[in-house]
Formats: sequence, structure tokens, C-alpha cells
Amino acid sequence: MRFDIMTLFPGEVDAFLSSSVIGRARSKGIIEIECHDIRNYAKDKHRHVDDYPYGGGVGMVMQVEPILLCYNDIKKRVPDTYCIYMSPKGKKLTQTRAKKLLSKRNITLLCGHYEGVDQRAIDLIVDEEISIGDYVLSGGELGAMVLVDCVARMVDGVLSEKECYEDESIASGLLEYPQYTRPADYNGIKVPDVLLSGHEANIKKWRLEQSLSITKERRKDLYNRYVKRKK
Amino acid sequence: MRFDIMTLFPGEVDAFLSSSVIGRARSKGIIEIECHDIRNYAKDKHRHVDDYPYGGGVGMVMQVEPILLCYNDIKKRVPDTYCIYMSPKGKKLTQTRAKKLLSKRNITLLCGHYEGVDQRAIDLIVDEEISIGDYVLSGGELGAMVLVDCVARMVDGVLSEKECYEDESIASGLLEYPQYTRPADYNGIKVPDVLLSGHEANIKKWRLEQSLSITKERRKDLYNRYVKRKK
Repeated sequence: MRFDIMTLFPGEVDAFLSSSVIGRARSKGIIEIECHDIRNYAKDKHRHVDDYPYGGGVGMVMQVEPILLCYNDIKKRVPDTYCIYMSPKGKKLTQTRAKKLLSKRNITLLCGHYEGVDQRAIDLIVDEEISIGDYVLSGGELGAMVLVDCVARMVDGVLSEKECYEDESIASGLLEYPQYTRPADYNGIKVPDVLLSGHEANIKKWRLEQSLSITKERRKDLYNRYVKRKK
Repeated sequence: MRFDIMTLFPGEVDAFLSSSVIGRARSKGIIEIECHDIRNYAKDKHRHVDDYPYGGGVGMVMQVEPILLCYNDIKKRVPDTYCIYMSPKGKKLTQTRAKKLLSKRNITLLCGHYEGVDQRAIDLIVDEEISIGDYVLSGGELGAMVLVDCVARMVDGVLSEKECYEDESIASGLLEYPQYTRPADYNGIKVPDVLLSGHEANIKKWRLEQSLSITKERRKDLYNRYVKRKK
């Protein structure tokens, strides 16, 4: 799977996506990520890529041309790439939506900045708009990194065992049970006995009960969906 | 406002939060961010901070002690810090929740990794758990950066004009109208006439209509809330 990221901050995005799980998957060649500097496609000598919004208003808007030129370069190399614009106007990212994106082999992410992107760029190249949540951020970079991390984790071979993501909270439809590791006693605060018992069935039962009770308390929506599905 | 971030990837997080709007605010001294390497508080010579989960299961769990030692160091310097754990089990981050966090002068963010964090660390130090959305990520780092960006943008002086964030989609309760900038004609695709008219009232009217229609089409939930509030 390949991700192309169009951004004004290619260095920072690339550095973050070189760490941890995604970094390892990149160096193993399981996923490919290339960050493209939109500023390289600016036409004027000051490398401007933004200008004042027509109709007035605060902030700057990213111009259509540098984005299109950058995208055309990506298309030459990856003709079937699927273009996503990270935007608060987009469909909400969920685990289910991320799973669907797994079927695209190549994804290009457009990161807006400032007050956004000239609508014509969106109309001309974007296949889908996705939002990571109902909050305002300085740019699309964090959204793009969230999407890449979330999708790439599910690519075969990125995590060591399949359960690693299928077992997780949210992915399973319930919030996760509490986790504990060594030491068994930390300044008098002990790990629940059942987890030290070695009794597999009891541990499984305890964990499910914990998951159910945490989910019921904190996320009625997920809890109701889970109970409905189990019927 | 000050943010302390406890993480296994202090370099990557710090680099990203040194760019763009947040980077400028840091160098102006309006906000302070310090990233703390939890691994520096490991006790063994291999600097392990994780171990197998009690009760079995895939993945590793972050140990309680390095996190506590790291947190105690932060508390020495910032006694009134408010500790947030980035977790899928947390309350959903929204613009409203982010605004509430503005009243905390000092926030510490704990980023989990692997399969999560020993529950005792959470019980002992965490004031609030926050989730950025219903998807699984490799660690809390992206969540922490999202939260810092979202909250810090609202700190006085970080953005040049107050409207900059109050005008934005989501913040206003509606999705944003389309934006356009130079050139007025790009390969025959023109900016809507009204935006070139200079007629302020018409522009305002057009923008509100656009916002309402996009919100109605894409986000019935926000649209209904907005209409209800306006009544």
C-alpha cells in the first residue's frame, strides 16, 4: 500500500511517520509513504502558495495551481491513486471507514492549511473528504497522519499478529478491559487476583465483564450497538 | 499556557509541534511545550518500559513505575498540572471540550503505546481520559498533538485575530462555505461572481446559504442543532 501526502510540512510529517509501527513497516517495504512539498510547485519566486480569499475574510486560502501541479506529478507515478482531502466537512473517520480504505492500494492525502483550499482544487481532484473529528486544527497534517496510521496498521504484515488490531477496543465494538503488567504489587497496589490465577476461562470472563461495564458506563452508543449485534 | 507531554517519541512530537502556528506561538513564548521521554525513567539497563500483560494476550503494556517517576518530575515543576490520558476509552474531543480545557493553565498529556498502559498508572495520576475519535492508532502521540493544536490555537495571541478561530467551520456550528482565491479564472473554471462583486451583504448572504446547504447535506446533526439554537 502506498500513501502520497501533499503538504506544506513534508519534513515534519515524514519524520513522524518514520517512527514506531509505521516507520518499521516502511523500512520493511510493506508500506510506502512519500511526502510532497506543495511549495515546490509555486510559480512565483517567493514560493507563495496562498492568497487572500475572494469576498473578504480573515486568513489565507491555498491556491489551486500548486496543488494541481503537485497532484499531476503524483498521478504520473501512481495513476490509480485515490485522493482524500482532510477536512472538517468530510465524513467522519471511523474504524469501519478506515477498513474500507484498505481496499484502495494507493491513497493521496491533501492537507489544507490556513483558512483552507481553493474550492476548485477540491472539485477537480478530490474523491472523498474525511474528517477526524469535530474540532478545528491548524492544518490537515494531523488528520493525514491519523488516517495513515489507522489504515496502515491494518495492512497485512504491519502488526505482528492479526489479533493485535482485531482485539483492540473500538475495533471489537467494546472499550478495552484494564491492562496490567509487572510488578504484581506496586507500592501496595495490586493487580487483580484473577489475572495472576492462570485460569484462562476466568480471565476471559473477567475481561469481558470489565469491557462491558466500562463501555456501558462511558459509551452507551457502542454498548447498545454491541448488545443488539449479539442478539 | 503550558503542555507537558509524556511519550516514548519525544523527538518526533516536539519536531511536529515546532512547526506552523504552534511553533510560532512557542517561539514567541505564548505557549510552552515540553516533551518528556518516559524511557528516561526506566530502571533496567535496557531501558525497558513495557512488559507482558498479566492474564495473557498479545502486545505489551507500559509499566506503571516509569510513568509515575516521569509524572513526579513534571509535578515538581508544575504542581497544578492537569493530567489527561489520550485513550479510545476517553470522552470524545470536541471544540466545546477543547474550549473548557483552555481554563487549565497547565496540562500534562500521557501518551500510551503498544497495548496500553498499566491501569494503576491511570488510576494514580490521570484526571481525565480523552479520545480524538473512534479509530485505533499506534499510540497516544497523534491524539496529544491534536489536542495541543486544537487548544493552543484558542490561546490569546496564538492566532493573529480572534475571528480566525471563531469564524471557522465546526467552531461556528456550521460547516464552512467554499473558499476561493486568485486567479479568478483558472483554465476556464471561474470564482462565483458574487465573491468578485464587492457587495458585502450579498457575499455574507451567499456564504451563509452555502454553509447551511453543505451542513444540511453532510451533517444533519450539526444542521439540526444550529437551527434549534437560532430559534
